[in-house]
Amino acid sequence: MPRVHIDVMLKEEILDPQGQAVERALPSLGYEGVSGVRIGKHIELDVPDDADVAATVDGIADKLLANPVIERFSWRVDATG
Amino acid sequence: MPRVHIDVMLKEEILDPQGQAVERALPSLGYEGVSGVRIGKHIELDVPDDADVAATVDGIADKLLANPVIERFSWRVDATG
Repeated sequence: MPRVHIDVMLKEEILDPQGQAVERALPSLGYEGVSGVRIGKHIELDVPDDADVAATVDGIADKLLANPVIERFSWRVDATG
Repeated sequence: MPRVHIDVMLKEEILDPQGQAVERALPSLGYEGVSGVRIGKHIELDVPDDADVAATVDGIADKLLANPVIERFSWRVDATG
């Protein structure tokens, strides 16, 4: 039963205030120069062996996990099972 | 400037109600048999070239992104830059 990792992120052109807040907090913690902080969702799930992994994951991400207007998603199958 | 992907997930022994809600919604959308749904955070950021990537990312995740009591984190450097 393949375990799939899905990342859902705001599109590049959409402002990410949560990422900006983290980025602004980092220098005071001693981390200078870290940039481009973006924060999204990470979902893990097991797809049944008899299912089409690509069709299942694309469908779930598109219908339930991501808002396609403002978010993009990507996924990969966990090679370790 | 390496781009790093960090995943922050609830520890296995911690209940994940958001993941359970998604899992319960899937059969009504036509996705039977999907299990083990867990939902966490995905963070992307650029680490300066002169920084120690491992020390920087471990420090940021531990101090700011994850709650080590209930969450674990993992990270990888984006090979595509």
